[in-house]
Amino acid sequence: MGPSAHIEDALRRAFVLAANGPARGANPQVGCVLLAADGTVLAEGWHRGAGTPHAEVDALSQLAPGAARGATAVVTLEPCNHHGRTGPCAEALIEAGIGRVVYSVDDPGEASSGGAARLRAAGIDVEGGLLRSEGEAVLGDWLPAARLGRPLVTVKWASSLDGRAAAADGSSQWITGPAARLDVHRRRAAADAIAVGTGTVLADDPSLTARDAAGGLLPSQPIPVVFGSRQTPADAALRRHPHAPLFADGRDLPAQLAELHGRGIRSLFVEGGPTLASAFIAAGLVDELLVYLAPLLLGGPKLALGELGIASIDEALRLELASVEQLGDDLLVVARPVKGH
Amino acid sequence: MGPSAHIEDALRRAFVLAANGPARGANPQVGCVLLAADGTVLAEGWHRGAGTPHAEVDALSQLAPGAARGATAVVTLEPCNHHGRTGPCAEALIEAGIGRVVYSVDDPGEASSGGAARLRAAGIDVEGGLLRSEGEAVLGDWLPAARLGRPLVTVKWASSLDGRAAAADGSSQWITGPAARLDVHRRRAAADAIAVGTGTVLADDPSLTARDAAGGLLPSQPIPVVFGSRQTPADAALRRHPHAPLFADGRDLPAQLAELHGRGIRSLFVEGGPTLASAFIAAGLVDELLVYLAPLLLGGPKLALGELGIASIDEALRLELASVEQLGDDLLVVARPVKGH
Ligand SMILES: NC(=O)c1ccc[n+]([C@@H]2O[C@H](COP(=O)([O-])OP(=O)(O)OC[C@H]3O[C@@H](n4cnc5c(N)ncnc54)[C@H](OP(=O)(O)O)[C@@H]3O)[C@@H](O)[C@H]2O)c1
Ligand SMILES: NC(=O)c1ccc[n+]([C@@H]2O[C@H](COP(=O)([O-])OP(=O)(O)OC[C@H]3O[C@@H](n4cnc5c(N)ncnc54)[C@H](OP(=O)(O)O)[C@@H]3O)[C@@H](O)[C@H]2O)c1
Repeated sequence: MGPSAHIEDALRRAFVLAANGPARGANPQVGCVLLAADGTVLAEGWHRGAGTPHAEVDALSQLAPGAARGATAVVTLEPCNHHGRTGPCAEALIEAGIGRVVYSVDDPGEASSGGAARLRAAGIDVEGGLLRSEGEAVLGDWLPAARLGRPLVTVKWASSLDGRAAAADGSSQWITGPAARLDVHRRRAAADAIAVGTGTVLADDPSLTARDAAGGLLPSQPIPVVFGSRQTPADAALRRHPHAPLFADGRDLPAQLAELHGRGIRSLFVEGGPTLASAFIAAGLVDELLVYLAPLLLGGPKLALGELGIASIDEALRLELASVEQLGDDLLVVARPVKGH
Repeated sequence: MGPSAHIEDALRRAFVLAANGPARGANPQVGCVLLAADGTVLAEGWHRGAGTPHAEVDALSQLAPGAARGATAVVTLEPCNHHGRTGPCAEALIEAGIGRVVYSVDDPGEASSGGAARLRAAGIDVEGGLLRSEGEAVLGDWLPAARLGRPLVTVKWASSLDGRAAAADGSSQWITGPAARLDVHRRRAAADAIAVGTGTVLADDPSLTARDAAGGLLPSQPIPVVFGSRQTPADAALRRHPHAPLFADGRDLPAQLAELHGRGIRSLFVEGGPTLASAFIAAGLVDELLVYLAPLLLGGPKLALGELGIASIDEALRLELASVEQLGDDLLVVARPVKGH
């Protein structure tokens, strides 16, 4: 039995409900619509964030006991199968006597997946994958981050056309012009967190806020994360950031990223410096590169990237250009590592 | 008395005549039309290259003695005033009794200029600057090279997005793809000469020819020039180049360029390596930069440019982007140094 038009309509409604939930954090935005056999809507629900009921439970909670018996649950994400702060949704649906479950996107979580199988084992008719690309779009960065078990990582640098991030004396303000800098701030605001190494903290004392052209704070601010073991001074500018900074000590980037992911960080904007950016690239932990190229030459020793552990041209990290854009006098090259390299 | 339509027509005809001469070499392409008082064409001439009569003399030589008396000479370039292998054209025009001279472009040469003044001193009516931009286009690279007293210099490099010209082990074939390499060969063919340092000769043994996609020689080949004092091996590939290579010893780039200019080289395509390219840039002897950026990262020590003698960001060599073009998977950035930097 394929999904009928009213099931698709209900799923589209569930996408809208999902967006009521918080767009950031450890948990995804999920919506649920419960339909009677004749297609009328019995209840709607959505997930309000970690620690609160999942969308299915939220919808069920609006019905009198027994009222969901034989109903169809239409959900944006496969019902979960794990005991977190709330019980597994699969169990809740089974207990409520739901007759059929239709969902859009498979749960990518290691701990939480298996909900569809659990439901089927209980004799419930289950169909997944309906309107999958819309469903994936609703989940945003949460989905690929969940698949990777880490935040999506963007590494950004600004350099001269000859690949220098600063002049020989370390001066680099401003390599790029106002349009490029504004673009960086806009992208900072879109990320959950922003990372720098201790070298940059100690050299530049950056504020790591996302600001508009007038210097005012943008409404959304990334959480500052400092990578490295050296102390961040008590009076460092980033300690006055709207979010308390996180400190990621050590040299185990996969573990550090997994920990940030566990804190609900889905996207990390790595601003440098060269040592930290090179470490992310060498570790193969980069999903997107933003290279702001300024129309100038500097020469000298201050490179935008250092050592990547590449010995021969065959080992080069191949990229796919996503876009090339002129921002004022500068160029922005957006690229992604080619899979398998 | 302003120039009438038939004078402009004659000058346009002289532009066409000029193009009959050789497009390369020490001397410019020049055309001349001699007009009677009623506007009829008495004679036409053009310059066939160094050592042969200039355009004015070529035109005069077609008339019986006295037949040019009172005529108007319409010339694409200011008549010369120096005793080279041929006598000064200004003298020839005076002796022939020419009544009026109209020309397009002022002679930029130090030794050869002053023709207009010499003609005026002899009582001849002289007007310069007619259709100047067309006249400048006809002269091509000859004109800016003559003004600079050196060839126009294009510095080209191919690098990864992080500014490396090779991997750590020196391997660099191929950083860029076939479309970019074909573009390089097309531009080589358009240059009078192609330069490399001895480092590149000894490391890569390049042929320095301009080739098509199938590897065949293009019709026009740049003269290979090796900069540096180390010996080029007797069996080096560039010794089999269609043109005999030139060897530019020493470290005095302005003098070396002046010498190449004296040999008729109007444009020099500097292919590298990094040391030679950096030396040209640091000396301020670059008119155009071609940066082929390949979508890959290499890291490591093999930089496309080395030391430029720039200490602080304020001293950066500022560029003006002329164009950004995608060639296959690569980017070509064409830029020019901003004057005064
Ligand atoms: N043009 C640009 O886009 C740009 C952007 C940012 C900075 N910069 C410039 O970069 C300069 C600072 O360069 P930098 O390379 O020293 O700064 P950095 O990359 O910010 O910091 C390097 C430090 O990060 C720590 N670290 C943390 N995790 C690491 C890992 N996995 N691998 C290696 N190191 C790790 C290490 O310090 P611990 O010993 O403390 O662990 C290391 O010394 C400044 O002058 C700044 O102006 C330029
Ligand atoms: N990716 C690219 O676009 C590209 C292009 C070309 C080469 N390369 C690579 O570059 C490497 C060679 O690098 P390189 O820098 O040694 O080569 P190079 O620039 O070709 O040669 C350097 C040599 O040029 C001579 N020279 C002449 N005039 C000079 C001046 N004014 N200032 C300084 N030196 C001058 C010096 O040698 P003397 O002691 O003999 O005077 C110097 O050692 C090769 O591995 C090659 O593959 C890459």
